[in-house]
Amino acid sequence: MNITAEQLIAGRGSRDGSRTFSATNPATATPFGPQFRDATAGEIDRALEAARAAFEEAPPSPPEQVALFLDRIAAEVTDLGDQLIDLAVAETGLGRDRLTAERGRTVGQLRMFAETTREGSWVDARIDTADPTRQLIPKPDVRRMLVAIGPVVVFGASNFPIAFSVAGGDTASALAAGNPVVFKAHPAHPNTSELIARAALRAAEAESMSPGIFSLLQGAGHEVGLELVRHPLTEAVAFTGSLRGGRALFDVAASRPRPIPLYAEMGSVNPVFLLPGALASRGETIAKGLVHSATLGVGQFCTNPGVVVGTEGPQLDQFVRVVADLVRQAAPGTMLYAGICQSFGHSIERLRSVPGIKVESHAPAGSAQKTQASPTFLSTDATTFLAHPDAREECFGPSTMLVRCGGAAELEAVARALDGQLTATVHGTPEDLAAHQPLLRILRRKAGRLLFNGFPTGVEVCSAMQHGGPYPATTDAHFTSVGSAAIYRFARPLCFQDFPQHSLPPELQDGNPRKIWRMVDNQRRND
Amino acid sequence: MNITAEQLIAGRGSRDGSRTFSATNPATATPFGPQFRDATAGEIDRALEAARAAFEEAPPSPPEQVALFLDRIAAEVTDLGDQLIDLAVAETGLGRDRLTAERGRTVGQLRMFAETTREGSWVDARIDTADPTRQLIPKPDVRRMLVAIGPVVVFGASNFPIAFSVAGGDTASALAAGNPVVFKAHPAHPNTSELIARAALRAAEAESMSPGIFSLLQGAGHEVGLELVRHPLTEAVAFTGSLRGGRALFDVAASRPRPIPLYAEMGSVNPVFLLPGALASRGETIAKGLVHSATLGVGQFCTNPGVVVGTEGPQLDQFVRVVADLVRQAAPGTMLYAGICQSFGHSIERLRSVPGIKVESHAPAGSAQKTQASPTFLSTDATTFLAHPDAREECFGPSTMLVRCGGAAELEAVARALDGQLTATVHGTPEDLAAHQPLLRILRRKAGRLLFNGFPTGVEVCSAMQHGGPYPATTDAHFTSVGSAAIYRFARPLCFQDFPQHSLPPELQDGNPRKIWRMVDNQRRND
Repeated sequence: MNITAEQLIAGRGSRDGSRTFSATNPATATPFGPQFRDATAGEIDRALEAARAAFEEAPPSPPEQVALFLDRIAAEVTDLGDQLIDLAVAETGLGRDRLTAERGRTVGQLRMFAETTREGSWVDARIDTADPTRQLIPKPDVRRMLVAIGPVVVFGASNFPIAFSVAGGDTASALAAGNPVVFKAHPAHPNTSELIARAALRAAEAESMSPGIFSLLQGAGHEVGLELVRHPLTEAVAFTGSLRGGRALFDVAASRPRPIPLYAEMGSVNPVFLLPGALASRGETIAKGLVHSATLGVGQFCTNPGVVVGTEGPQLDQFVRVVADLVRQAAPGTMLYAGICQSFGHSIERLRSVPGIKVESHAPAGSAQKTQASPTFLSTDATTFLAHPDAREECFGPSTMLVRCGGAAELEAVARALDGQLTATVHGTPEDLAAHQPLLRILRRKAGRLLFNGFPTGVEVCSAMQHGGPYPATTDAHFTSVGSAAIYRFARPLCFQDFPQHSLPPELQDGNPRKIWRMVDNQRRND
Repeated sequence: MNITAEQLIAGRGSRDGSRTFSATNPATATPFGPQFRDATAGEIDRALEAARAAFEEAPPSPPEQVALFLDRIAAEVTDLGDQLIDLAVAETGLGRDRLTAERGRTVGQLRMFAETTREGSWVDARIDTADPTRQLIPKPDVRRMLVAIGPVVVFGASNFPIAFSVAGGDTASALAAGNPVVFKAHPAHPNTSELIARAALRAAEAESMSPGIFSLLQGAGHEVGLELVRHPLTEAVAFTGSLRGGRALFDVAASRPRPIPLYAEMGSVNPVFLLPGALASRGETIAKGLVHSATLGVGQFCTNPGVVVGTEGPQLDQFVRVVADLVRQAAPGTMLYAGICQSFGHSIERLRSVPGIKVESHAPAGSAQKTQASPTFLSTDATTFLAHPDAREECFGPSTMLVRCGGAAELEAVARALDGQLTATVHGTPEDLAAHQPLLRILRRKAGRLLFNGFPTGVEVCSAMQHGGPYPATTDAHFTSVGSAAIYRFARPLCFQDFPQHSLPPELQDGNPRKIWRMVDNQRRND
């Protein structure tokens, strides 16, 4: 399929912009492919106006149509075959196996949201029936369900060019809730983005969705994204990326004349606590698992285990030796793009310049020509970690830092000093767990997801997943960006009081034609 | 019971402040009762530190204990008897019957949240069980439920001295979710606030809650509230009041180093659309209902019907005559305090100064000595309404304004021009509804609650209620401040991956000891 390097606005190409950029293969530092353009203010406006029209000018699409649309996107993305994988490899430096798995995950997410929409109970329908005989004031008939909110702007993430990009979880959940999406592609993979966007547009046409249901905008500078967040027709925004970028967009969203929610997932250090029993019984296994998790995908995961906390002693020393050896033997890896590789280098420099933090080991130096980062293992003590906020900041890339503690009180002090986290992990025996209840209580307050004897990378896509956590992990700890609950970001309750049956949405009619689970007079039922 | 005019911090009185204020009886413009003090920064800090300690330093209170606490507050508030009603009448100018009903509502809300907590399914427990045999990557065991977020700051509302005040719906829902509350009393009813706070503290003691679970702070200036929102230990804020006040607090909450959610319910004009069939068949009944709703409680409701929209013709003219007569015959009423009465006067002046808006009728002028407002009926045409943003702003008090439209297209244009609303109402016949689907679709996007052939005042407290809506009605349309769903503002999902059974909360254990409704491997069940 041809890449035209146009903005794709409501199904039509547009090339108004004058500022251009192209993809670069990070493994060779070579630019390639067509010149893309930053979307202009006029193009942004047309995309959002088309989204508004799709949302407002016709009755909402029935859930079955939305489900077919999502299933069809899944099929079209699958049909892209090798062209998608080839382009994504070239633009991101990620491996074929990883990208093939990522495509599988993306297709699975689309089908999961199709099923969520088709099954329908996600709308949390609640019905309180009338009681005209109630004394003082008759009781009205009150019915409530979740409905779509309107045009959603989604930002592509650099580190998941398929699963958190054009047809990724944010787009799928926003569409599943009934919203149009205006997608801002990440400038590190514009070709992959266009390819998938064209698949989505074919799906929209095949399922007779309004053309404004999806638009793709490209842009290398910050201005396109800022303009999208500022635009008066935008109702919500989803973003996955850095704390600095997410916070800048959040500030714009909150300071609009009409503030809108901005759901930013901004990563974290994902602390791993090693309790004594686990270190004694499985220290070497944990060390191997840690190095695998910290270097997987060249460490480019929001859930990368960036901080490891353990209690001093011979078992921790042995653990450190094993981790140091494994990291020394690791290979440098190509990062997503030059800027992210430079940032990783600066973060490592910032950390090692802190008195009390040292590099325990690192892999062979990478090649700048291949945009390579070298896996790095650092260590420090609790006093240094507690005294230096820098030490607690995310270092995005293949590194992890051990924090040596004097005992349970210092483990707890370290936990207490942490900012909000996507995840926190504990390695322990059942006895360890029983003996460290105060630590567990602190971690419950700090993170969105707690893991026991595992590693935080590899986020399962399911109903119970929570990929989100207290700030600065995300801007809103109420919501998740992975799993079927991600749909709740893009819907709001709408209540109908005393409306005749035939004018209610099917989800709220007495007969429950969609056979969804509802709360009727405070009883859960699906009849 | 004695009113000591102290801050009540974790069960102890404190009187550090130097700036003082007292209550004023608006019906006589007479100050009365003890001198209260603005809480100091030190007192604010102590209240939040006590809340933090209550939240962090012990395992969470079991749901049954929280439920008993809420039930006990309900009993203690009931036991306040006439003293509560007498004080509230004196501080607010509201009638005994109204305040007695408001107490009943408050007690009902507390019991509803006790039942929500006791029943337990509100935590939205989700369990996805493991599959160690899954190919590529074994499937982990993932379990998720809603948990408390920490110290919540609640602001009292002037217009509901009981139901949206110390032990009102915001406090009850925050406590029900397991959070401590620091309550900022509204300066218009400090005595009523202290009386209820003492009832809550007796309940906390009786049910062995941590003393930091509830604190009451007083303050007449803005600084106490701003300081509470800025405080680093505050995790969320609930506010009911003006757009200006709510937005100022929202801006502070969003611009903190660590932003927190601020749930502000800021009122709206609650448009009422009169469709032709309804006007023809029930014009006079609707007119009576409208005047009753617009003057109830001297118009001091967030859901006051401030704008009425109809199609020109003899039936609308007749409707206007009836409304004008009823308003002319209405009595002036004492508003809550002098400032709110002056604001009402200024709003009416602002409206009548717009060319094209006229006063159709008003009740006899009120007495300034009695802080009285005069019910007022204004009218304009769609052109004026569309051209003047002023005309679409809330006028808090006993008034309503008719907007004359030329036909369905103008009805829709008026609807489209509206800001976000708590409610929108349609009076019509089934035929009207069928003929005005585009109007209904616009209103669905504008409001949190749609009413058919009713009036928006009188917000039913139930599971299906949505008291909230798109900005500026509230700062977050995802949530409600009335009804059992109000609890969701104060809880966030927490996910446990691969934890042993005995270390999971009861809500997530295999045996489902609390017998709550859960989603287990995507099936809803309560076994």
